[in-house]
Amino acid sequence: MESTEKTPVSYAHDDDKQALLARLKRVEGQVRGLQRMVEQDTYCVDVLTQISAATRALQAVALGLLEGHLNHCVVDAARQGDPTAKVKEATEAIARLVRS
Amino acid sequence: MESTEKTPVSYAHDDDKQALLARLKRVEGQVRGLQRMVEQDTYCVDVLTQISAATRALQAVALGLLEGHLNHCVVDAARQGDPTAKVKEATEAIARLVRS
Amino acid sequence: MESTEKTPVSYAHDDDKQALLARLKRVEGQVRGLQRMVEQDTYCVDVLTQISAATRALQAVALGLLEGHLNHCVVDAARQGDPTAKVKEATEAIARLVRS
Amino acid sequence: MESTEKTPVSYAHDDDKQALLARLKRVEGQVRGLQRMVEQDTYCVDVLTQISAATRALQAVALGLLEGHLNHCVVDAARQGDPTAKVKEATEAIARLVRS
Repeated sequence: MESTEKTPVSYAHDDDKQALLARLKRVEGQVRGLQRMVEQDTYCVDVLTQISAATRALQAVALGLLEGHLNHCVVDAARQGDPTAKVKEATEAIARLVRS
Repeated sequence: MESTEKTPVSYAHDDDKQALLARLKRVEGQVRGLQRMVEQDTYCVDVLTQISAATRALQAVALGLLEGHLNHCVVDAARQGDPTAKVKEATEAIARLVRS
Repeated sequence: MESTEKTPVSYAHDDDKQALLARLKRVEGQVRGLQRMVEQDTYCVDVLTQISAATRALQAVALGLLEGHLNHCVVDAARQGDPTAKVKEATEAIARLVRS
Repeated sequence: MESTEKTPVSYAHDDDKQALLARLKRVEGQVRGLQRMVEQDTYCVDVLTQISAATRALQAVALGLLEGHLNHCVVDAARQGDPTAKVKEATEAIARLVRS
């Protein structure tokens, strides 16, 4: 069952990788901003709003990664043989996102 | 851009289609059960628990459909040419699930 | 621990109850619509879009119920004594919604 | 409408505040871990798994904050007068969490 082996991934293009890192840097900034809000006793509901924003930003990163994964790993598996195991693995990752 | 045309889909196998219909029938039963709970003034928190169960059941249906869609439509597109548009369309559907 | 006893709930006003039942009827219609879509071999992505719509409708029902629960059960508990157990119970219900 | 004024919040007890900050520090560590995974070309599905974990951690912080908010701000509002506006505000924050 070759299809789930973890081939070294180069995130397709180096541009994608830099964009991904920039987005994760921004999420890190959002989480640090949350700490400052708590330190300064910011009103709870405003903190909750910022947590929702950080959560959405993380999910946007996940959706970008997932699109790349489908376009590269799943598509390559489809062209080289039986992609069933890769598709199952991707669906399980999607299930974790949907439920988190 | 052939890849997003809506080819008639037979849900791969008729078995899958029957299983899918059976699961949706069960969700329909859950939603009717919710109506009975409200009619009988069931305690709110118990109604909320059942809504969560029905939501999860709907999401399980979606994940099953999505796995079939990746295995058939996306894989076929990958084998026949450029699957980029199909992958984009699938990712947008996943985004709607993640955010619902 | 009086605060989690399941007092008969009348959904505050009969109007709220009728509105709630009407919304659940509509969700039932959406789930039956999903069955027709599957029977007619509707394109998977369109079925997924409708599942997202039904999920959102169920969550809107849950949020309406929750607002009523906070306004009645939690507020009454706060006025009558220690609402900690009621708040804990409500938070657990919210956690189930967030994760479903 | 006194109930939505943003009273300075001390997160009830200083212990809660320190615990909250510690949890947010851990989330920050998870997000930095995600950056390292991307830099080292970690397999996409493993990165997705970690994003789900970080998302869940953020939601756990939100649920903790929300429980405190209900126990303090909403309960105080209930005891001092009409809590309807506070409950509406809390429900809107919950809706953003459910949909993120």
